[in-house]
Amino acid sequence: MQQLIDEIFLSVFDDTPLQSQLKEDQAQLPLAEFTAHGDRLAFTTDSFVVTPLIFPCGDIGKLAVCGTVNDLAVGGAKPLYLSAGFIIEEGIEFKLLESIVSSMAKTAQQAGVRIVTGDTKVVERGMADQLFINTSGVGVIPSRIQVKVSAAQPGDKILVNGFIGDHGAAVMLARENLGLYSDLRSDCAPLSLLIHPLLAQCPQIRCMRDATRGGLGVVLNEIAKASQVTIELFEPELPIRPQTQAICEILGLEPLFLANEGMAAFVVPAQQVEQALQLMQSHPLGQQAKVVGQVTETSQGMVYLSTAYGGKRMLETPYGVQLPRIC
Amino acid sequence: MQQLIDEIFLSVFDDTPLQSQLKEDQAQLPLAEFTAHGDRLAFTTDSFVVTPLIFPCGDIGKLAVCGTVNDLAVGGAKPLYLSAGFIIEEGIEFKLLESIVSSMAKTAQQAGVRIVTGDTKVVERGMADQLFINTSGVGVIPSRIQVKVSAAQPGDKILVNGFIGDHGAAVMLARENLGLYSDLRSDCAPLSLLIHPLLAQCPQIRCMRDATRGGLGVVLNEIAKASQVTIELFEPELPIRPQTQAICEILGLEPLFLANEGMAAFVVPAQQVEQALQLMQSHPLGQQAKVVGQVTETSQGMVYLSTAYGGKRMLETPYGVQLPRIC
Repeated sequence: MQQLIDEIFLSVFDDTPLQSQLKEDQAQLPLAEFTAHGDRLAFTTDSFVVTPLIFPCGDIGKLAVCGTVNDLAVGGAKPLYLSAGFIIEEGIEFKLLESIVSSMAKTAQQAGVRIVTGDTKVVERGMADQLFINTSGVGVIPSRIQVKVSAAQPGDKILVNGFIGDHGAAVMLARENLGLYSDLRSDCAPLSLLIHPLLAQCPQIRCMRDATRGGLGVVLNEIAKASQVTIELFEPELPIRPQTQAICEILGLEPLFLANEGMAAFVVPAQQVEQALQLMQSHPLGQQAKVVGQVTETSQGMVYLSTAYGGKRMLETPYGVQLPRIC
Repeated sequence: MQQLIDEIFLSVFDDTPLQSQLKEDQAQLPLAEFTAHGDRLAFTTDSFVVTPLIFPCGDIGKLAVCGTVNDLAVGGAKPLYLSAGFIIEEGIEFKLLESIVSSMAKTAQQAGVRIVTGDTKVVERGMADQLFINTSGVGVIPSRIQVKVSAAQPGDKILVNGFIGDHGAAVMLARENLGLYSDLRSDCAPLSLLIHPLLAQCPQIRCMRDATRGGLGVVLNEIAKASQVTIELFEPELPIRPQTQAICEILGLEPLFLANEGMAAFVVPAQQVEQALQLMQSHPLGQQAKVVGQVTETSQGMVYLSTAYGGKRMLETPYGVQLPRIC
């Protein structure tokens, strides 16, 4: 196992501070970023159990970096450092592991974060499903940023930065032997690249939430409940690819509950919507950005869809998860 | 699953800041501890796959808290915040999960750390072995503390704070159906409670390392190699319980390579040894503290045992791990 660690993990995470710290059981990091008065430390964790390990336009490694980077970014934090914990089933192909770890390193570099500490555990064959990865992340939230899931107010607009359901639909097609084929790809991406310039221009954004497991539907329900408001979604405005829509119709799924890994909901005060939209659309990760809804009133917290024909439909949090092991 | 999270995890981690932040995907923490000039942030991660989940005097939950707290503490950090990521096999008994989570909360309280962020993933039956836990930890290292695995120097003494091999022997007996019985118990404990007062009195300690997977033998080899010194262990001085010794003799194992979860090696300059030893022995986690060896000379890094009969025996890092899934 030491050989495995040396060969695969050290060669790929070619980060000088990491290399020199691997003899220690922890990373020791400078605190220069944290010294302004009122700055807060952001700390988050996520385990990834997606199957298959490799899917169109991503793999568990890329996902593990993006997922944690995005959790930090939507809280208004600048992601700084990641940890990576691997639970490996005995007998996994070295080449596969190598390509996943290399994908993590590449994604971390793109996102501007450093993987500074790690751990590997090997379990016997049959005791885990090939590979699980945990990433935890540390970032800093400048004192002027105060995004909160409970901050949505009547009059605010709901924006999304991209298509709905791409990740969920792409992983499902890669996994299940459905006889369906499409060019759908996961939207997996480090949203900090979009959110960082956005918050610099629009610091009054009320809240952001990446629409992962549970999809946009669950995220908006969480915001509505935490903020005690009603959210109205304009159904004809929702950016859903025809392929995703078709797959959902065939399988009886709701695209609003499909997982996304590079798409977030943004609650923006009305007076900043134009600016936010323009900025998002001019960024590679926000080209499909749209206003898809609004906060209408204070309430116990509910989400409904306004349909093209003038009807209304409640969008409630479903009892279970539509698709297991999607992230 | 939401119900599972609500019922088990929220009820037990009854920590007000955690409760109010559970709606967010990350914890937002004050930075008051980090403001002194030269302080460093410590960040570490560990996944726990021990089997059985419950063993004499501990369980995977207690282990997951102690393991990460100890990794921070031996680097000289004050442990502050932990994350907890759970990978749960479908069908695990709720009562078992509850008792493990409750044990985590209790241990965190004892250790004075707060579990501030978490994540749960459920995988299908057969895709994981009941429960895996990842904990990551954040702490702060005061500028005056400079412990490093590469800092051992000829003349330094090697101290341990307790018996050797208790955790490994206890878990092995609990797991394997060997027909052997003993009163051996895991030494699993948060070492920060011992190390914090120790560093306050003896800030010149060169390095510390908790002797987990691989045991004291591997840890001392790591220190010897990183510091480019030779370490001599006095075999008759090693505190090994007769039960552990007997089990090792029956099974052909080496106690120096058994895992420990509440025992660390301390490399201490000769002039501070008396003070360090006295302080450790007066603490519940260091009652068995002893000088067990010394750093003899600069070299390529080697460890040898001086036996009771005046002989010498090299102690090399073994090729594999003696016992899998011990932590």
